Amino acid sequence: MSGLPNYQCSCGRSYAPSAERWRCDCGGLLDLPAGPLVWNPRAGDHSLWRYRDAIAVPGRELSLGEGMTPLVDASLDGEPGVRLKLEYASPTGSFKDRGAVMLVALARLLGASRLVADSSGNAGTAVAAYAARAGLPAEIFVPAGTSEKKLLQIRGHGAEVTVVDGSRKDTAAAAAGRVEATGAFYASHVYNPYFYEGTKTYALEVFEQLGGTAPATLVLPAGNGTLVLGAYLGFAGLRAAGLVDRLPRIVAVQAERCAPLAAAFAAGREEVAPVAPEPTVAEGIAIAAPARGAHMLRAVRETGGTVVTVSEEEVARSHASLAARGLWVEPTGAVAYAAVRRLRSEGSPYAEGEIVAPLCGSGLKASL
Amino acid sequence: MSGLPNYQCSCGRSYAPSAERWRCDCGGLLDLPAGPLVWNPRAGDHSLWRYRDAIAVPGRELSLGEGMTPLVDASLDGEPGVRLKLEYASPTGSFKDRGAVMLVALARLLGASRLVADSSGNAGTAVAAYAARAGLPAEIFVPAGTSEKKLLQIRGHGAEVTVVDGSRKDTAAAAAGRVEATGAFYASHVYNPYFYEGTKTYALEVFEQLGGTAPATLVLPAGNGTLVLGAYLGFAGLRAAGLVDRLPRIVAVQAERCAPLAAAFAAGREEVAPVAPEPTVAEGIAIAAPARGAHMLRAVRETGGTVVTVSEEEVARSHASLAARGLWVEPTGAVAYAAVRRLRSEGSPYAEGEIVAPLCGSGLKASL
Repeated sequence: MSGLPNYQCSCGRSYAPSAERWRCDCGGLLDLPAGPLVWNPRAGDHSLWRYRDAIAVPGRELSLGEGMTPLVDASLDGEPGVRLKLEYASPTGSFKDRGAVMLVALARLLGASRLVADSSGNAGTAVAAYAARAGLPAEIFVPAGTSEKKLLQIRGHGAEVTVVDGSRKDTAAAAAGRVEATGAFYASHVYNPYFYEGTKTYALEVFEQLGGTAPATLVLPAGNGTLVLGAYLGFAGLRAAGLVDRLPRIVAVQAERCAPLAAAFAAGREEVAPVAPEPTVAEGIAIAAPARGAHMLRAVRETGGTVVTVSEEEVARSHASLAARGLWVEPTGAVAYAAVRRLRSEGSPYAEGEIVAPLCGSGLKASL
Repeated sequence: MSGLPNYQCSCGRSYAPSAERWRCDCGGLLDLPAGPLVWNPRAGDHSLWRYRDAIAVPGRELSLGEGMTPLVDASLDGEPGVRLKLEYASPTGSFKDRGAVMLVALARLLGASRLVADSSGNAGTAVAAYAARAGLPAEIFVPAGTSEKKLLQIRGHGAEVTVVDGSRKDTAAAAAGRVEATGAFYASHVYNPYFYEGTKTYALEVFEQLGGTAPATLVLPAGNGTLVLGAYLGFAGLRAAGLVDRLPRIVAVQAERCAPLAAAFAAGREEVAPVAPEPTVAEGIAIAAPARGAHMLRAVRETGGTVVTVSEEEVARSHASLAARGLWVEPTGAVAYAAVRRLRSEGSPYAEGEIVAPLCGSGLKASL
């Protein structure tokens, strides 16, 4: 009815999209059909919607101009071949806008009357902002300890905030419970595959901004994997369409203190086992049990990439190094660049050739 | 030597640009020659540098991707004809990046070894960020009471902060004193005309984003007038080049509590007399004695525009109204939209036809 492709589960089931459907009856994750994409950027459109022929589009009247973030050299002198993508110059200050706009557009198209989301921060803010833009009521579940500043913004956008006295995982469970109980649309950046249609545009922009080529390496922070998987899908679609002849290596980056993906990768496993996280300044990627962990492992391996971890000190030093060159990010936003510095200082083969890394969230988001 | 046009003063003097020259020997303000601009946007460039043929360019290797901010409808339903330009989706979170990048590029071109700037907030942050990007040391003078958060960012970018125990005007005097004493480059958003070459691109983007037309009205906040004058210069250049046949009316907006331009306009004067300001939430435009006040009066009058004031309550209500539609601005950022609401609710002739208003600064900048 919606004109959208069916959701697919790896168990073989498929479903027509509806406002209530957010996972498979088997409990599995839903995806969209993959394949070659249509490369037809709309020259006059300076938002991610310029790539609307290349993604599964759930309607688009909702834009706040998200996407088309700057790609700049890491520094004016030195570090040739390292480019940073300023995802923080987004309407709500993080790359999560790419996915949030898709979810809210989809909710409208499917006739949802209410949204539920869970987030430790940037995704919840982005969903609240786009829900407000769409005139849809939203309820955002956040873990206890979320900063007052973030709560103020979420509430400012008219969303209801429910603080869950528990972990990030407990927060997700509470949100899913509310969805099941009320039939609300679950605007989940983990479960809903349209979020990844949005983050896919990260790859499409990099490709276009590099003059229609793929870099050697994409260094990407990895928590729930929204950017890792989106970037993978984008370049896989470009390759399937014959526009690039190889995938850039994906180097996924985690904080040492919460690194389930790194552990699974190093052990050669195909699934990611939960870890007991320690507190980290990189709170935006501190996901102890990523639901799409197996997807991430496959993406990293298929590209010939790897998973690295960075210490608290490396994140802090990279944050300072970026600030000293005019780039103001929240601590999590310095994670990818910390990995770039490490790989280059070690002379790692993953540091050979052109590297692109995102600066995901604005330093203005950090509390003071 | 620099290949740049001479600075001109209304007294008749002119000067080759140099790192030390920031005002006329008569004390007057320096401008650049006006005239038709060259309209040749570079399609592949998604920053304000796509208009480099249309402005006096002081070098450009410095970009953080500033400019090309989104232009969106004020709301999905209702308010047809009101468009908002999301200047807050800029590298440092405000439109001041447009001018700051020009000043720092100029400083490099002229061989400056040190920058001085004065600002109550966003301009200082922007100059600090771009100076860091360029590797140039900077000293930013701020008035006492500037938020810790702003100071943290300015210092994070490696700039020295000098807190002046006095008014905004005292702060400017202290900065000018330091410039005179040390020969530093004065990166002044008030005095240096290249700042306005940067803010000119606001107009060029509006023109291009509206499909090569001028809106009926530009509603613009007015403190020192950086955006009012830049927008005026941009459309004046387009008109001189025969690309538009009229200038959009400029409606300049001030806070009731600090409205020297409004007073001068209402009295039919040609100069702006200083006022004794009261505290206002619109701190970003609380300029009691704008140095370019006469320029602003001429620009507003030539376009058939006007000057309006908004109350603290109107700013607060507009801030909430924007947030409820997904747009998160600092209080000053709601000023222009507050005026739009007032003009429309009054059925003012200035509200007829298409209106464009900027959202100048990110809500993430506000302290909490």
